[in-house]
Amino acid sequence: MRRSIATVSLSGSLADKLTAIGAAGFDGVEIFENDLLGSDMSPEDVRRRAADLGLTIDLYQPFRDFEAVPPDVLAAGLRRAEHKFAVMERLGATRLLVCSNVSPAAIDDDALAAEQLRLLAERAAEHGVDVAYEALAWGRHVDDYFHAWRIVRAADHPNLGLCLDSFHILARDVDPYAIRTIPGDKIFFVQLADAPTLPMDVLHWSRHYRCFPGQGDLDVAGLVDHVLRTGYDGPLSLEVFNDIFRQAAAMRTAQDAMRSLIALEEVVQRAGDAPRPGGALPPPLAPTGFAFAELAAPSAGPVGELLGALGFVRGGRHAGKPVELWEQGAARILVNSGSAEGQDGPALAAVGLESPDPAASVKRAEALLSPVLPRLRGPRDAPLDAVAAPDGTEVFFCRTARPDHSSWTDDFSRDRRPAGEAPGEITHIDHVALTQPWHHFDEASLFYRSVLGLRPHDSLELPDPYGLMRSRAVSTEDGGVRVALNVAYVGAHDGRYDLAWQHVALASADIVATARRAHAAGAATLAIPDNYYDDLEARFDLGAERHRLLRELGLLYDRDEQGEFLHFYTATIGRVFFEIVQRLGGYRGYGAVNAPVRLAAQHARRTRRAPQ
Amino acid sequence: MRRSIATVSLSGSLADKLTAIGAAGFDGVEIFENDLLGSDMSPEDVRRRAADLGLTIDLYQPFRDFEAVPPDVLAAGLRRAEHKFAVMERLGATRLLVCSNVSPAAIDDDALAAEQLRLLAERAAEHGVDVAYEALAWGRHVDDYFHAWRIVRAADHPNLGLCLDSFHILARDVDPYAIRTIPGDKIFFVQLADAPTLPMDVLHWSRHYRCFPGQGDLDVAGLVDHVLRTGYDGPLSLEVFNDIFRQAAAMRTAQDAMRSLIALEEVVQRAGDAPRPGGALPPPLAPTGFAFAELAAPSAGPVGELLGALGFVRGGRHAGKPVELWEQGAARILVNSGSAEGQDGPALAAVGLESPDPAASVKRAEALLSPVLPRLRGPRDAPLDAVAAPDGTEVFFCRTARPDHSSWTDDFSRDRRPAGEAPGEITHIDHVALTQPWHHFDEASLFYRSVLGLRPHDSLELPDPYGLMRSRAVSTEDGGVRVALNVAYVGAHDGRYDLAWQHVALASADIVATARRAHAAGAATLAIPDNYYDDLEARFDLGAERHRLLRELGLLYDRDEQGEFLHFYTATIGRVFFEIVQRLGGYRGYGAVNAPVRLAAQHARRTRRAPQ
Repeated sequence: MRRSIATVSLSGSLADKLTAIGAAGFDGVEIFENDLLGSDMSPEDVRRRAADLGLTIDLYQPFRDFEAVPPDVLAAGLRRAEHKFAVMERLGATRLLVCSNVSPAAIDDDALAAEQLRLLAERAAEHGVDVAYEALAWGRHVDDYFHAWRIVRAADHPNLGLCLDSFHILARDVDPYAIRTIPGDKIFFVQLADAPTLPMDVLHWSRHYRCFPGQGDLDVAGLVDHVLRTGYDGPLSLEVFNDIFRQAAAMRTAQDAMRSLIALEEVVQRAGDAPRPGGALPPPLAPTGFAFAELAAPSAGPVGELLGALGFVRGGRHAGKPVELWEQGAARILVNSGSAEGQDGPALAAVGLESPDPAASVKRAEALLSPVLPRLRGPRDAPLDAVAAPDGTEVFFCRTARPDHSSWTDDFSRDRRPAGEAPGEITHIDHVALTQPWHHFDEASLFYRSVLGLRPHDSLELPDPYGLMRSRAVSTEDGGVRVALNVAYVGAHDGRYDLAWQHVALASADIVATARRAHAAGAATLAIPDNYYDDLEARFDLGAERHRLLRELGLLYDRDEQGEFLHFYTATIGRVFFEIVQRLGGYRGYGAVNAPVRLAAQHARRTRRAPQ
Repeated sequence: MRRSIATVSLSGSLADKLTAIGAAGFDGVEIFENDLLGSDMSPEDVRRRAADLGLTIDLYQPFRDFEAVPPDVLAAGLRRAEHKFAVMERLGATRLLVCSNVSPAAIDDDALAAEQLRLLAERAAEHGVDVAYEALAWGRHVDDYFHAWRIVRAADHPNLGLCLDSFHILARDVDPYAIRTIPGDKIFFVQLADAPTLPMDVLHWSRHYRCFPGQGDLDVAGLVDHVLRTGYDGPLSLEVFNDIFRQAAAMRTAQDAMRSLIALEEVVQRAGDAPRPGGALPPPLAPTGFAFAELAAPSAGPVGELLGALGFVRGGRHAGKPVELWEQGAARILVNSGSAEGQDGPALAAVGLESPDPAASVKRAEALLSPVLPRLRGPRDAPLDAVAAPDGTEVFFCRTARPDHSSWTDDFSRDRRPAGEAPGEITHIDHVALTQPWHHFDEASLFYRSVLGLRPHDSLELPDPYGLMRSRAVSTEDGGVRVALNVAYVGAHDGRYDLAWQHVALASADIVATARRAHAAGAATLAIPDNYYDDLEARFDLGAERHRLLRELGLLYDRDEQGEFLHFYTATIGRVFFEIVQRLGGYRGYGAVNAPVRLAAQHARRTRRAPQ
């Protein structure tokens, strides 16, 4: 499949956009008219530049408010079209997008629309141009693709065909199945965009919140499958209007876009009847659990003390680097004091995931454009299979202590106390929570979905005292690997509150015992306001004894239909804190209902510790 | 009228919020439950703190999903209520907000709702608590205030009344007129919020985009007028959920909120039958034109050269400060080289507006909480009447060269060439455009509306190459004073593109002559891409000669039903540039259709001049 993208999807000047699109490996580009109008490049310059970058100009767009109009408006439209054909000739573009009319002047008359579009196609033919007619979801009279198809069919001109846009079709819940009945050679162009489900007018939604396929909630792959069954073999072209992508760096957005197309093609190939060529993407390998979490903590002392108080033992030291391995059950925390101190202090730097085949996991990540980290860090280190996640977190693929593979643990000399002797109740890492840079949230969610095969859950809004937080979990089907992605909902500009907290949640088999242990050892845990417990008693009747225990130990509580959830937090060290959780029954959430109280408490402790 | 505000409207901890609310001069506060739950302050602490700040606790809220439910849910609800009555007793709060039920468990049975609310009111009465029942716009069965009133009337208990919320009523276009039929003593509470018109689901709209009265498009004052006619004499309380206010500094938001209430009361008093006490706000005095625009430009040379090329003459120098006065017609530009160089270079620092009574203008601004600037800057200066706008721009109220008042021009020694000799075609300042900090846009729009009496126009979205820009003009009725307020739509974080451009638009009686003059004098004007002119020819048939002229001189063109608009831009010096405009016929806009091309061209010149 040819991969294309509209220039409007990226930020910057037209020249910058073309460069980024070429660098990301696209085959073609749609020139969005406004990008040309604001550019000093002549159409001939654009044509040459695109050719130099190996890009064909697949579409010139948009041409608006043409069809089904009174004669004087038609004349002006034809005049306008002649000017655009001239520009296209200079650009070397042979396909023009005509959007269904949104003007009040449009007449609700399909025959008239067909007649005038035929006239346009005749003129276009004289310039070697094809016209692709698209039903906008908010078109005045023509707002679904099948209606547009009836008009194109009636117009019956070889230079007139359809443009299908996944957003316009799926956002209005129009059934895409009937695409299969359209002859493939009458589909002149296919534009793809996804979007998160948002309760708003379709035009406002389209202008601000489109995203790349796989980042939202629309079944773009399903639609593409219908399209491909028609025999369509033109470009699949991304056309995204997104407030955040408009501001983000074009090179990076273009890569994100390409990742989205590669992942989409994989799904479509799996769904399709026969595999298409180019399907060289290694299949997804679901990680089976967390191997470790690594903290960059230049002074390892405070983190070690905290881990000790939670029942961890230091099980080993790295042979060649100042890295400690702390263990309890299958939970392993690396404390790396060899890294430079970030300005915010200790941070979560890396996550190890158990993979059935680490090398294959890296190959897939690489094919999906993730930066692969150097395999060998020191001459004596075991080889590492690792990539960088969009927020810079290093993701290692591991087979821990398996006979069939070298293990990262081999790099560690064992201390006297083996891990089996850890005294605590913690069994494994339940999840990690990573705060994302505001302009990479969608990219991160696609990374975890496509590269690691994790399933995205619903987006939540959590009120922090200094702004709304957006939170979305991704997980394996069995919950063995869970990652919570958080981001400030609107860019939080005030440096004071802009700290990107991250945390590691540890599963305890007996959270009451773990809490008592932590308190006895003097660990700094997050004090929860009494008011929370008063409200908990109002909301739930858990019996006086249990309520007393929760309050005494500072445990937070939630429940859903499947079960109960108990959790508490340690104090924050730098950017990082630990959460201890216990899932009772089949509880599947993350205690989001308690997040506002937790965030308020964390801000309060922070302010108190370092008043400004 | 008692002035109150809900804690949820501000950012920070509960303690911070109370401090800000007290400092802004409110009489009372609504305690939003989540703010209490996340706070270390006990209810008794909150009570004491509020009392110390002179605040009464007017409402505890919200109590959700209580009425019209099966017996087991009712029992849990009553149990929950007893806990809340206990908290309220500790807080010293005697009014509880009960929102109409949104739960799927709610039964569509008004009699049952009334019966259960009566039961709640009976329990509340035992604790000295009143229950204020509010119809949420998205209530499951009860979603308008009159429906809620029928239920309250049927329940018929002295401790049960209504809470009216302007957003819930106006957002759903429910006619507020019938409020007049409700006895004032059954209206227990009134919450006020405004919102901009946005095409989305009412719940999403409410949660993210509410703003203070006067900042949006709802007729909040009209609703309050109905309320006051019932005899209601309780608090008018602001309750705003806004993504941006959640992040902004609480002290400042509280002041903005107070300004909104003061301005609202003025409108209501003017609309009401009899003036109410406390109406000491000096009436609005519409400015009649621009007196001057002042640029802070440490090295005055480049700005002076540019002004000279546009046909300005240097008409005078300030007696005591390094400030030059450049004049042409009634357009006056001050170039102040005594100010410190901002990191972005020259900036628009002040605007002078012609006022019928400068001292009264300042009094009004002060009553609306604008910072008043010191009247005397130097021992020899004429007294100044000036305030600071929310973005820091100084706004001076002037009477230029009028016999009845001292004139700021008296501070300037006249140069040899009097202003009347300026050779150019520029007649006056058409408008100024000020880029607002992202978190003060609504505040700015209220400032210009309430303090200066300018009328806000529609909000526009303008695509900049590095993000959407929001733009809203405010003007006097006759267009004598026009200010365009611009802001990056989502916070633009990338410092490289974050420069807050400002500009002064100068009206020319003959823009062709002005453009020729500027080019002849070698002024750096903004080059407009040829592609723009190709498109202009496609869109309009202005005749070959006129098209040629526009292209040759780099003029941009727009038209509307009333007339035509021609404009061009100078190069940018620091943060500032000039626009030269000519309005033909009754054109009332600002050439917004050309903004994307202008912005692209400006970014292109900028990148070229200082590659990074």
